[in-house]
Amino acid sequence: MYSITVRDHMMIAHSFRGDVFGPAQRLHGATFVVDATFRRGELDADGIVVDIGAATQELSGVLGDLNYRNLDDEPAFAGINTSTEMLARVVADRLAERVHAGALGEGARGLEAISVTLHESHVAWASYERRL
Amino acid sequence: MYSITVRDHMMIAHSFRGDVFGPAQRLHGATFVVDATFRRGELDADGIVVDIGAATQELSGVLGDLNYRNLDDEPAFAGINTSTEMLARVVADRLAERVHAGALGEGARGLEAISVTLHESHVAWASYERRL
Amino acid sequence: MYSITVRDHMMIAHSFRGDVFGPAQRLHGATFVVDATFRRGELDADGIVVDIGAATQELSGVLGDLNYRNLDDEPAFAGINTSTEMLARVVADRLAERVHAGALGEGARGLEAISVTLHESHVAWASYERRL
Amino acid sequence: MYSITVRDHMMIAHSFRGDVFGPAQRLHGATFVVDATFRRGELDADGIVVDIGAATQELSGVLGDLNYRNLDDEPAFAGINTSTEMLARVVADRLAERVHAGALGEGARGLEAISVTLHESHVAWASYERRL
Amino acid sequence: MYSITVRDHMMIAHSFRGDVFGPAQRLHGATFVVDATFRRGELDADGIVVDIGAATQELSGVLGDLNYRNLDDEPAFAGINTSTEMLARVVADRLAERVHAGALGEGARGLEAISVTLHESHVAWASYERRL
Amino acid sequence: MYSITVRDHMMIAHSFRGDVFGPAQRLHGATFVVDATFRRGELDADGIVVDIGAATQELSGVLGDLNYRNLDDEPAFAGINTSTEMLARVVADRLAERVHAGALGEGARGLEAISVTLHESHVAWASYERRL
Repeated sequence: MYSITVRDHMMIAHSFRGDVFGPAQRLHGATFVVDATFRRGELDADGIVVDIGAATQELSGVLGDLNYRNLDDEPAFAGINTSTEMLARVVADRLAERVHAGALGEGARGLEAISVTLHESHVAWASYERRL
Repeated sequence: MYSITVRDHMMIAHSFRGDVFGPAQRLHGATFVVDATFRRGELDADGIVVDIGAATQELSGVLGDLNYRNLDDEPAFAGINTSTEMLARVVADRLAERVHAGALGEGARGLEAISVTLHESHVAWASYERRL
Repeated sequence: MYSITVRDHMMIAHSFRGDVFGPAQRLHGATFVVDATFRRGELDADGIVVDIGAATQELSGVLGDLNYRNLDDEPAFAGINTSTEMLARVVADRLAERVHAGALGEGARGLEAISVTLHESHVAWASYERRL
Repeated sequence: MYSITVRDHMMIAHSFRGDVFGPAQRLHGATFVVDATFRRGELDADGIVVDIGAATQELSGVLGDLNYRNLDDEPAFAGINTSTEMLARVVADRLAERVHAGALGEGARGLEAISVTLHESHVAWASYERRL
Repeated sequence: MYSITVRDHMMIAHSFRGDVFGPAQRLHGATFVVDATFRRGELDADGIVVDIGAATQELSGVLGDLNYRNLDDEPAFAGINTSTEMLARVVADRLAERVHAGALGEGARGLEAISVTLHESHVAWASYERRL
Repeated sequence: MYSITVRDHMMIAHSFRGDVFGPAQRLHGATFVVDATFRRGELDADGIVVDIGAATQELSGVLGDLNYRNLDDEPAFAGINTSTEMLARVVADRLAERVHAGALGEGARGLEAISVTLHESHVAWASYERRL
């Protein structure tokens, strides 16, 4: 099994609902350093998983819709805790939509899975992995 | 599949028995930077894998029983080489006991697996993964 | 010249005023991974710059007053852009106050300088250095 | 499941063929920071996956055959794009040959899988995983 | 003293002349992860050293003139060993030209020094620092 | 001012004397990831600060005299707390001796300063800088 991973980041504000979150129930924020991994069993005709430049561009596009925003004000997240693991899924699902829409090229049709890791600090991170 | 990972560290002395270990048969030591990963298929009612604060606290508790010690003197490790991979299992098993005892809360009952990575330097690390 | 550095982090929300900031004029947030460095010409009687445990505790205390907050609502920052470099100074100055108040012990009276670096992402960080 | 990972690096020149590569069709180069992971279900008689020193030496041997070279001139890669993911496979396969030839010792016969990650920068890396 | 640092990278081929370089006399390559630091005594009217976005853009411009190239073919480097430390100076000098030309804005006139670090691997890097 | 830095590591046991050290008064250990930096105002005739390969070799030699040892048993450290900052000085001084003895070659006579950083964990490190 082959994979490639590209890294970018976003800087957002949000708050959580639920006693378990303690002081994180207050409005605060995070830099998420985001790693997006694309997996497949065999390389494409160019000898790659997917073009690293194209993957970087699509990840940047997905993050651009979230970056420099207060997620508490985003209709897409109404009633949802935008935890690090939940946002990992959001990024993975939006990348999957772009793969299916052909944004990563015809060769990317052979991709089998995507996993996304969001690093919220040097001591905590979360991931979500899904099939394509 | 979702996961969250938290990082902490411990500083221990130990020695190894066996020719394969060469100079590491002498009493020496290590800083282990420890990453503990918790996995599950679905998020809990709060939209998380497990509370990152609680996971950090339990990892700190497990490492606190090993930290600033000479592992050669610990009865739990009599006759055992405390290799990096063996210690990864020890930390994972002790975290699993805490999960089963409810230390990470009721929501943590949905956890499916734990993996633990111990970094012994910038160029070597070891992991152990187990079901819960 | 000797130094020791300790690392911690904080997660805050804020916004900037000024066209130069572009989309960062919106309410957003950041994780700041914070490195605090203490410098002196000679070691103290225990053979250290300052106790790493005490330095870690004081840095945690300084960051605790900022962590999980919207800095736009903090009276201390009224009318100020809480840029990464400005916050590096705030953390350095507050650590200096603690040194002068004796919070790091009598040995810490020999400290000559403090520098603080705030990492806002894997590709950008800012520092402030001052005398004690 | 246990694993150990060792890290080394190599510095090579190469070029790619195919429009998808854009400016990387020109002769350029890369530092690949290489992580080689060895996996097995149970530890050997010494309580390890495989000796970290031996693993480091064999990885260094494999990279030594590629290091400080222009891969466009290597017969082994004639007609092949030496993409990061393709080179991850080359390193993994060559390590597997060494395991099978006994270079990592008799205990290494219990190894079940190898994965190799090549970091081409701080924002992009590729992996290949195979059975032994 | 305040500073901000931004990070980017470039991937180049080159070779060295001189027995001291051993196998690096052959055509090979490197990824250089490049950190550019800008320093000044006082912040500008916006409360910053220089805009991180503008600094990132100018660093990208400087690296774009070197990226994906064989430096042995670049007239600017004829007769020069493009060592990591030499390239750190090249990048710093070209950034300084851009500052003097106003590319980082009027506020950047207050910059006092630039330092540039090129990481050639996880175990070696080089820096050059100069006044503005 | 130019510099180059090379990284290696050592794994040692030791204990501290003094109430300030708390549980670190017990026999424990550390991995020290060691960065050695060499500085000079002008490059040598080969266009370098000092050969990175030679610097790596000499750093390895210095660390080899400390690696896999219990520092409490080393006569050189009798009556001394082998704190991270103290060991940074030991490594720097021993590297300086090697420079003065010609181990880094004639070109290295132009070196002006050495600084050494020992990382004891991902959240704490210490440095010592000296003239040559």
